[in-house]
Amino acid sequence: MMIENYIRDIQGFPKEGILFKDITPLLNDPIARKECLSILIESLKGQKIDKVIGAESRGFFFGMLLADRLNAGFVPVRKPGKLPFDIISASYELEYGTDSLEIHTDAIKKGDKVLIHDDVLATGGTAKALGDLVTELGGEIVQFNFLMELSFLNGREKIKDYPIFAAINY
Amino acid sequence: MMIENYIRDIQGFPKEGILFKDITPLLNDPIARKECLSILIESLKGQKIDKVIGAESRGFFFGMLLADRLNAGFVPVRKPGKLPFDIISASYELEYGTDSLEIHTDAIKKGDKVLIHDDVLATGGTAKALGDLVTELGGEIVQFNFLMELSFLNGREKIKDYPIFAAINY
Repeated sequence: MMIENYIRDIQGFPKEGILFKDITPLLNDPIARKECLSILIESLKGQKIDKVIGAESRGFFFGMLLADRLNAGFVPVRKPGKLPFDIISASYELEYGTDSLEIHTDAIKKGDKVLIHDDVLATGGTAKALGDLVTELGGEIVQFNFLMELSFLNGREKIKDYPIFAAINY
Repeated sequence: MMIENYIRDIQGFPKEGILFKDITPLLNDPIARKECLSILIESLKGQKIDKVIGAESRGFFFGMLLADRLNAGFVPVRKPGKLPFDIISASYELEYGTDSLEIHTDAIKKGDKVLIHDDVLATGGTAKALGDLVTELGGEIVQFNFLMELSFLNGREKIKDYPIFAAINY
């Protein structure tokens, strides 16, 4: 089975000129989903993980499954104003302007071994912000983990000090 | 273990007068999370499920775990404009005005046995919209499944024709 076959290309979403990688067929197929999860887990080679960070919203899907298999805590990183407890935030650049992400201050303890998961590594802006949040709370980043890497955008340059894994490379 | 102990009360979020039930401590504790998942699964008494529907965003967390344990497809229902493929939508009432939810038209096949999951059953508006989407695509609703029910809001009245389960009742 090739998990790539469960990623659907959508031309012109969310706007003209963008080729969107739709993961909903992968989520909707229990066998392909398990295969994808196995690939992500194998990349960790048995390393101990205390917390899995998942980025809103598409990082929540496999982030939860990874936390489940690793017997780790799951920590959602969310868009501004969504998390109700004490937070810190990190901003990142968009094509025009900036946006930011938030994490609960009690989500990670100093020294926690952390796996950072998101669906796509694109320009690396979100990934960098996720790493900044984990580091600020004293977590140790074990790996940046993605379903897909869009290599031509060279996002890995922004997180080059850490191990990076993507199940699919485009 | 009482999973209630992993739900944190936040007074005045997202606005004054609201007591918000924060599930992030539950997500962040692998043992409590597994216990909660077992309770949700047991409520199904071995019934076959083809698809698990999870509502954006907090329905994604346990929705994914339920789909995993049930070997079912997972289908995200999302806020407007987030799903890239062909969609249908259902609207529901808010305190002021209306909002809507969307589902991919290819997410459910006629006759699929469907479990609908969300974190909270409150006024029932979202739940009713989720049910409408599933029914419009020809799915058979096996159960409405929640982490929590806020019984005093009487949301179950809106979905009374279907089995309803909540792990915690307030």
